[in-house]
Amino acid sequence: MKKTIDLNCDMGESFGQYKLGNDDEVIQYISSANVACGFHAGDPNIMDHTVKIAKEHGVGVGAHPSFPDLSGFGRRNMDIPRDELMNLIIYQIGALDIFCQKYGVKMTHVKPHGNLNNMADSDEQLAINIVDAILSVRPDLPVFVKPHSQLHKVAERKGLPFKLEIFADRAYHKDFSLVSRREEGAVISDPEFVAERIIRMVTEGKVKAITGEEIEVNGETICVHGDTPTALEMIKIIKSRLKEAGIEVKSPFA
Amino acid sequence: MKKTIDLNCDMGESFGQYKLGNDDEVIQYISSANVACGFHAGDPNIMDHTVKIAKEHGVGVGAHPSFPDLSGFGRRNMDIPRDELMNLIIYQIGALDIFCQKYGVKMTHVKPHGNLNNMADSDEQLAINIVDAILSVRPDLPVFVKPHSQLHKVAERKGLPFKLEIFADRAYHKDFSLVSRREEGAVISDPEFVAERIIRMVTEGKVKAITGEEIEVNGETICVHGDTPTALEMIKIIKSRLKEAGIEVKSPFA
Amino acid sequence: MKKTIDLNCDMGESFGQYKLGNDDEVIQYISSANVACGFHAGDPNIMDHTVKIAKEHGVGVGAHPSFPDLSGFGRRNMDIPRDELMNLIIYQIGALDIFCQKYGVKMTHVKPHGNLNNMADSDEQLAINIVDAILSVRPDLPVFVKPHSQLHKVAERKGLPFKLEIFADRAYHKDFSLVSRREEGAVISDPEFVAERIIRMVTEGKVKAITGEEIEVNGETICVHGDTPTALEMIKIIKSRLKEAGIEVKSPFA
Amino acid sequence: MKKTIDLNCDMGESFGQYKLGNDDEVIQYISSANVACGFHAGDPNIMDHTVKIAKEHGVGVGAHPSFPDLSGFGRRNMDIPRDELMNLIIYQIGALDIFCQKYGVKMTHVKPHGNLNNMADSDEQLAINIVDAILSVRPDLPVFVKPHSQLHKVAERKGLPFKLEIFADRAYHKDFSLVSRREEGAVISDPEFVAERIIRMVTEGKVKAITGEEIEVNGETICVHGDTPTALEMIKIIKSRLKEAGIEVKSPFA
Repeated sequence: MKKTIDLNCDMGESFGQYKLGNDDEVIQYISSANVACGFHAGDPNIMDHTVKIAKEHGVGVGAHPSFPDLSGFGRRNMDIPRDELMNLIIYQIGALDIFCQKYGVKMTHVKPHGNLNNMADSDEQLAINIVDAILSVRPDLPVFVKPHSQLHKVAERKGLPFKLEIFADRAYHKDFSLVSRREEGAVISDPEFVAERIIRMVTEGKVKAITGEEIEVNGETICVHGDTPTALEMIKIIKSRLKEAGIEVKSPFA
Repeated sequence: MKKTIDLNCDMGESFGQYKLGNDDEVIQYISSANVACGFHAGDPNIMDHTVKIAKEHGVGVGAHPSFPDLSGFGRRNMDIPRDELMNLIIYQIGALDIFCQKYGVKMTHVKPHGNLNNMADSDEQLAINIVDAILSVRPDLPVFVKPHSQLHKVAERKGLPFKLEIFADRAYHKDFSLVSRREEGAVISDPEFVAERIIRMVTEGKVKAITGEEIEVNGETICVHGDTPTALEMIKIIKSRLKEAGIEVKSPFA
Repeated sequence: MKKTIDLNCDMGESFGQYKLGNDDEVIQYISSANVACGFHAGDPNIMDHTVKIAKEHGVGVGAHPSFPDLSGFGRRNMDIPRDELMNLIIYQIGALDIFCQKYGVKMTHVKPHGNLNNMADSDEQLAINIVDAILSVRPDLPVFVKPHSQLHKVAERKGLPFKLEIFADRAYHKDFSLVSRREEGAVISDPEFVAERIIRMVTEGKVKAITGEEIEVNGETICVHGDTPTALEMIKIIKSRLKEAGIEVKSPFA
Repeated sequence: MKKTIDLNCDMGESFGQYKLGNDDEVIQYISSANVACGFHAGDPNIMDHTVKIAKEHGVGVGAHPSFPDLSGFGRRNMDIPRDELMNLIIYQIGALDIFCQKYGVKMTHVKPHGNLNNMADSDEQLAINIVDAILSVRPDLPVFVKPHSQLHKVAERKGLPFKLEIFADRAYHKDFSLVSRREEGAVISDPEFVAERIIRMVTEGKVKAITGEEIEVNGETICVHGDTPTALEMIKIIKSRLKEAGIEVKSPFA
């Protein structure tokens, strides 16, 4: 039985004068930070600060590359040719990595952001492009993948390390695809229930699908959302329940 | 007597569909490429290509960081707070460095671009900010400096390696400041005369000021401009004359 | 029988230091300019200049709005929510219109750029969004549409004026869809043949499909491309042949 | 004696996913909105919304043009050539104006933003460029100016309408320049005292300098700040006190 679980959260998504999220607080409760690299959010100043506080709290630092889409926060589908997309991802990894170097920390992972990630659930060629980009510069750097997504399959096939990520506050279909936000019951807003799901997943390797079936998952990292007012409260309760259950929040890759 | 000289040229200043310069040709004649990092010009695609051709021709790759000013090509003065400016420079160095890693080359230098460079001629605090940014992540990476500029003095004082750069096609005052482009005789357009100046500088360590005095300089790298139609022709003639004089164009830092 | 035809060309697609096309020459041969509004190309300086030379040559000025995609030149598919897309289009029309006001000319048309236009060939909702955007601020402003495209159908249905546009240098299927550039014979590079097609279209209202069938079209404006080295030569020959055939190049909407 | 005063506030400074200020509330208490045009803040969506709510509340809509500096929120000095700066300003006025047209309101004023405004306090040439830009497209549109600034003097000299603006929450020197934020007493945070200053200014045409002298001013519009948590409270108290004193908040130019 596992005794630890990784909690990851998007971080560093402020920009210039614009503040988003409560990074300075949320960072105290998580174990992996997905740091925006300036393409959908973040800027060099914010990146510097985010890596600094991640180091202070022993939190793993991962690159959170995006489509080049500041005005749409990376949440618009875009079709970008393979070479161009690979170079966009490489650039963002490098831009973050040097701040890791500045603070003497080692980058722990890559998690594609927003629609770059969502499109790679089912678009095999896009998944290949993402995986090849990482392989070309950091072949040992794990990518966070949704179980059974194309990104998962391609990473496995090509030998890029990966970590299975589950969304504690989102309902699943029995094939492990996420229930669309447009459907009822898609988002779980009760922190106690979210904590319970995580505990079951860690201790039993199971989660219940929206249609009631038990589905098996070896979730290695749990995504928590930090950009809503209630997010911090949820994260605190989750952390507390996990502690009571004897489960430590910790990055196994840091 | 020196037998080699470094010729540096700004490279990778195209952007998306926009082409600037003749990089694929110019790269054959120079020894150091100052590669735009996406803030005044360049994009991840262009950066990838530029590092690739630099490697193919054994040309040193340097970061060419700029103010964030794509629409003004980095040629507008901007006042940016110290921490923010440092992080902008660090970000750009990291973004280029990962393409160096991809191609297995080692970054050879940093040369601030446009008005970031020009302002650091006389603005000591700005020079300090630039030097501290480089020191914080690459304390062994030489910066190209104009002789007697604040950037020169600060690099020397703080122990950052530097290389003295002279402009072969620009007239100098006897205090080694550049004659303003608005004054007559500021720009030297005759390739033969430019080549002659370089040869004298390499063989005798001297160059003639616009007012006729000989001034001494240990120029370690010569800037040539690649973004005009006549630039390529000038570079070819310079290279040819240097060869006839037994001087090899070569980066001593690569 | 018509005696005039409109030739339209994309204009003002330079940006900052980056030059694209030969606007100052091409403008002499066309009758309608589609002026970039800063989202895929162009900037306020370029827009000012383009409207100025259009006025000088009696050329109609149209807005050429795009997805917000400078790095991809508006040639990437993007999915943007209806309200947001409408506002992007409105913003671009307004930004160009004030330069028209400055020079005392009246905007003559709107032509969506690149993939915003291409996607509206078949995406009815996108076509509705474009048409509604124009209707909300300039209900009398004609939009250039490809015959039988969704943009054509929606404009007609909603009562927005439109002008049928054909591509003189592109082959057509018999259903009036363009032959893909990836297929053989898609692009016609012989200026004489291009001129001949235009003359037939103007005088007979017919053009030959790639499979040989005659198809009928009331082409009201012909798109010519100005961003290639040979474009200017082609435009000159076309203009000359049209003149010989007694057909005047003239915007009927200016 | 005047019975009305204009209260102006910067509005529409959110961007994409980033929210700044409490526009929907503040708009209820002011009479003139300075609307960001996308260069330091704002985007087409935000602009549309801001003009819409301004109309609903009978609030005057003014353009709030800026240097092109989203990452620095327009608060960095920049040196931009005359023609280019004029075109940047014209573009922004046009982009906002079309949303005014969409909602059937007439633009009421222009107020330069941030450091574009601050630099025009003392930089005569910059003030000329701003005034000439407005004159070239909207010669009847008033510009908000600080009393005795270069922008004030140039507008007066060139015949561009202007409105004298004072800052109710900022201390003045006796020559009517603002006390620097770095000096003690520069910012007045007590709403009652701010309200009292406005009432005196409206009823007596006087305000007290930081050194105690009475200075005369015909302040026509009062700037209130809407982007801090306490701003809304201050605006409510000011409005209430003005009402008690029989002074109506109203744009005389709308």
